[in-house]
Amino acid sequence: MTQVTIVMGSASDKPTANKAEKILDKFGITYETFVASAHRTPDRVVNVINESKADVFIALAGLSAALPGVVAAHTLKPVIGVPCASSSSPANLDSLLSVVQMPPGVPVAGVGIGRGENAALLAARILGTSNEKIATSLEDYRKELEQKTIDSN
Amino acid sequence: MTQVTIVMGSASDKPTANKAEKILDKFGITYETFVASAHRTPDRVVNVINESKADVFIALAGLSAALPGVVAAHTLKPVIGVPCASSSSPANLDSLLSVVQMPPGVPVAGVGIGRGENAALLAARILGTSNEKIATSLEDYRKELEQKTIDSN
Amino acid sequence: MTQVTIVMGSASDKPTANKAEKILDKFGITYETFVASAHRTPDRVVNVINESKADVFIALAGLSAALPGVVAAHTLKPVIGVPCASSSSPANLDSLLSVVQMPPGVPVAGVGIGRGENAALLAARILGTSNEKIATSLEDYRKELEQKTIDSN
Amino acid sequence: MTQVTIVMGSASDKPTANKAEKILDKFGITYETFVASAHRTPDRVVNVINESKADVFIALAGLSAALPGVVAAHTLKPVIGVPCASSSSPANLDSLLSVVQMPPGVPVAGVGIGRGENAALLAARILGTSNEKIATSLEDYRKELEQKTIDSN
Amino acid sequence: MTQVTIVMGSASDKPTANKAEKILDKFGITYETFVASAHRTPDRVVNVINESKADVFIALAGLSAALPGVVAAHTLKPVIGVPCASSSSPANLDSLLSVVQMPPGVPVAGVGIGRGENAALLAARILGTSNEKIATSLEDYRKELEQKTIDSN
Amino acid sequence: MTQVTIVMGSASDKPTANKAEKILDKFGITYETFVASAHRTPDRVVNVINESKADVFIALAGLSAALPGVVAAHTLKPVIGVPCASSSSPANLDSLLSVVQMPPGVPVAGVGIGRGENAALLAARILGTSNEKIATSLEDYRKELEQKTIDSN
Amino acid sequence: MTQVTIVMGSASDKPTANKAEKILDKFGITYETFVASAHRTPDRVVNVINESKADVFIALAGLSAALPGVVAAHTLKPVIGVPCASSSSPANLDSLLSVVQMPPGVPVAGVGIGRGENAALLAARILGTSNEKIATSLEDYRKELEQKTIDSN
Amino acid sequence: MTQVTIVMGSASDKPTANKAEKILDKFGITYETFVASAHRTPDRVVNVINESKADVFIALAGLSAALPGVVAAHTLKPVIGVPCASSSSPANLDSLLSVVQMPPGVPVAGVGIGRGENAALLAARILGTSNEKIATSLEDYRKELEQKTIDSN
Repeated sequence: MTQVTIVMGSASDKPTANKAEKILDKFGITYETFVASAHRTPDRVVNVINESKADVFIALAGLSAALPGVVAAHTLKPVIGVPCASSSSPANLDSLLSVVQMPPGVPVAGVGIGRGENAALLAARILGTSNEKIATSLEDYRKELEQKTIDSN
Repeated sequence: MTQVTIVMGSASDKPTANKAEKILDKFGITYETFVASAHRTPDRVVNVINESKADVFIALAGLSAALPGVVAAHTLKPVIGVPCASSSSPANLDSLLSVVQMPPGVPVAGVGIGRGENAALLAARILGTSNEKIATSLEDYRKELEQKTIDSN
Repeated sequence: MTQVTIVMGSASDKPTANKAEKILDKFGITYETFVASAHRTPDRVVNVINESKADVFIALAGLSAALPGVVAAHTLKPVIGVPCASSSSPANLDSLLSVVQMPPGVPVAGVGIGRGENAALLAARILGTSNEKIATSLEDYRKELEQKTIDSN
Repeated sequence: MTQVTIVMGSASDKPTANKAEKILDKFGITYETFVASAHRTPDRVVNVINESKADVFIALAGLSAALPGVVAAHTLKPVIGVPCASSSSPANLDSLLSVVQMPPGVPVAGVGIGRGENAALLAARILGTSNEKIATSLEDYRKELEQKTIDSN
Repeated sequence: MTQVTIVMGSASDKPTANKAEKILDKFGITYETFVASAHRTPDRVVNVINESKADVFIALAGLSAALPGVVAAHTLKPVIGVPCASSSSPANLDSLLSVVQMPPGVPVAGVGIGRGENAALLAARILGTSNEKIATSLEDYRKELEQKTIDSN
Repeated sequence: MTQVTIVMGSASDKPTANKAEKILDKFGITYETFVASAHRTPDRVVNVINESKADVFIALAGLSAALPGVVAAHTLKPVIGVPCASSSSPANLDSLLSVVQMPPGVPVAGVGIGRGENAALLAARILGTSNEKIATSLEDYRKELEQKTIDSN
Repeated sequence: MTQVTIVMGSASDKPTANKAEKILDKFGITYETFVASAHRTPDRVVNVINESKADVFIALAGLSAALPGVVAAHTLKPVIGVPCASSSSPANLDSLLSVVQMPPGVPVAGVGIGRGENAALLAARILGTSNEKIATSLEDYRKELEQKTIDSN
Repeated sequence: MTQVTIVMGSASDKPTANKAEKILDKFGITYETFVASAHRTPDRVVNVINESKADVFIALAGLSAALPGVVAAHTLKPVIGVPCASSSSPANLDSLLSVVQMPPGVPVAGVGIGRGENAALLAARILGTSNEKIATSLEDYRKELEQKTIDSN
């Protein structure tokens, strides 16, 4: 069973997706990853969503980042949007605002620019509301994070 | 025969759509207008596009304005995007950047914030490349505009 | 049993919180609402979080909106952050960026400026991953939203 | 017969113009390219426009990018504006806003920062409204783009 | 003899032009004022410049404010640019950046948003470099300004 | 006795903290430095503050920089906030606005992005109001700074 | 004896200065208030600073807010800068950035846009480092603030 | 006789000042150049201005760029402000807005970020209003610029 479906708008978003996958692997959360663009392969996006049995979606995109919103339009599962940086972008405000400023009725859970790891951690928190094992992993992770911060002194 | 299909993401974009319709009426360009949201009624957006015989699309949306890009993903006709103002928007940069900053491969022709009239004039310029009557109307309109500016002295 | 805990940083955020409460009421999701400021009553924020049994937190704040991040620091449940508008704010980028641009390790699920209703809908999507009744309510709501958009034509 | 006239404000915009030329070549669309500055050679800009028989103009400029608007002031053909990046530019908002925020009456079709390829694709869409061969090329291009995205999985 | 030529891009810029005229009147500096748009009446802009005998130009425009740069392209006299506010403008950054971010070779002297009075005072400083009477008026004005500030205590 | 407590949100802020330490060393002001994150180690932040006997706090953080505000919430001593640059940040406006735009009642003294040295100099000015030796050091430093600027001619 | 000297750049900044004065009155901190502009009355600014015996300066200004930096250049006491809102300002980023982005060597303690009350509270925290009575008043104020927040539930 | 006085706020602004000097040299305009900071050496700034016999000032500064405004406060000659780029600056909006957004009464002639050459050309235009030789040089320069643009084809 796949718990998280990751969709990225472009192969250039892979480094950010990898940050998410690394956390999901660490937590033992199952996932599948697709490249599917809201602009170049809109039907494929819908297919990916329709065929997914996941409880959480993570959608990554840069520039005019329509993908997270389009995913949220086709599922009623929580959708986490990750704005990705682009060199031709005005301070990355394009992807950030596209992800976050969704109209009323169709929410996307926006995380920070390039924050693939936080998208995965948010997915873990969501899954953890009904999965004890993940909830425990989150506690372990927090302690690890805490210790790492303390050790950096 | 309909020459222009206007799609707005929300009924609240009607005042901006009206600016476009007023110009199209003046130029004798036929059009049809729909409210169809990329986020709330994604299937309807695709239906509107698929059933349209128009040569130009005008798509209006505010906030995370995915609509123009989604229309451009489902047609190969020119798509004009109009970012609409919203009170909860950071300086309207959300809709502006969502409309303009399209990824390579799927172009949207962005006009200024709330510039419905310019969207219609751009549609007229596009149709005018193969329609003498519209080309002549554009010349008349320009003279009128010129005279109005001179008269404002 | 309370399913959602709403914390707002200031009584001035109440209109945005009300948008969330209205949706939660409609979905029959139980909630409790507190005013507790990360800056003026930091201990109270921690108490509210520690005493909460909720599965989802919604935190609303304006200006330097530390509250959602502070809530996310004290719980491992999903935290939805709502940036609130303020008249003395530079285009509301302060609260928006404070909510969304969280450092790696501690995610907040950011929604748009003043989007209390989307925060509640996101909470419903999260709860709906393990609650059939809420999942069904989401489907009804989507149809209602869809119909309303179609009717606005 | 020339179908597209490309005007760039400075020789430093050539890399962006090349992206457009590459697409036009691929589609078999004829074009001519000029360097002509609205600020340094204003008369030459007018001459280039007056002597052009093209149906579409593509104007590229950086910084205070007046060129696309000036071209649109001297022709009634559709004008596509491409804001170009500059190292001394505040997040490239100068060229982007200069291109897009045209006053009512004189439209420019703005594409994203440095998006020469999208300018050419938009020109192809415009020409394709009355040219079957280009319309077919657009369909082929879309399939190619779609396949490339799928293959990147 | 006219010392200053004022050109505004639209009749809606008149309140800002009036602030300039009021100062010029006070200083006994002669001027003429025109509405001439770089986008709607480009030939008229060139005519106004060519027929002007003024030593300083003041150009006012909103949105994609090409006018000051276009005036500077057609004269070698100093050109003062005044960005004008517009309700559909993203924080008025469009006109501000269009006025100030001129490419190398063609300078515009930018003043603040809506600062017609400062444009006139800058014109007076420029004319005052070779006109004793204006130089003396500037001293008087400064004293007045100083006194007014002191009196506001 | 420690006069200044420096808290940084992440080990990556050390270069900025070092700029502050260098100035404090030069002025003979005693200090202690901690890594403690408002998001990853919230309890440690409170402990650091509670155990501190310092008269001034310097808090450094990047991204959604909650740390300075959280420090200011737990002490009544002056808190100087230093926004730190981050590569995934939109023009560093996130940390800057998080530090400066504090709500009424809980002030943070914001300095510029990455300005560790100014944070230390501000601490010296504050301590110098009741410490003659530091006040004298400030005078010496100013002369040195002045001379260095003159010598750069 | 005057403990705080308030300087505002323009009489239009009085409402913001009043917020500071109200807090200083409440805390029994003595102050004097001047209108003195870095641009219109630069000598008066220097005189005000030179004649002041205060331990803390509060400087308020809008637009290109040079005043706080100029005050900091003429004294070695801590200077608190308050950026003031202006209708012709791009999202008030002009005054905010002018106040906060001081070059290395001359610090200003920036507070939020229009935050006169926070400027006064910061002054109280600074004075409180060597004044027991003020330190106690700060504790009382914090409790009051805390209670008010709790009561708003 | 010196015709232009150049003042830069920091030795780090020298590359931008050099661009201005190169143009002035080419035009045979005499100048003197100083490093004098509005924040680190305020008295020296006033001395430089008082001792100058120049008809035009060029002031260059980065970050919170108070220098151009301070120069304009101490002379009645035209003052050209050049905002300089800085790595710790939010998209260079700090220096740009500090230079351009001057309050009513004290104008600065702002040019683009890092545009030393345009500052010098603006100075030449100003001096050219009463100096035939410079006016002729400007015509030669324009032809050269025009030819260079044409040759880049």
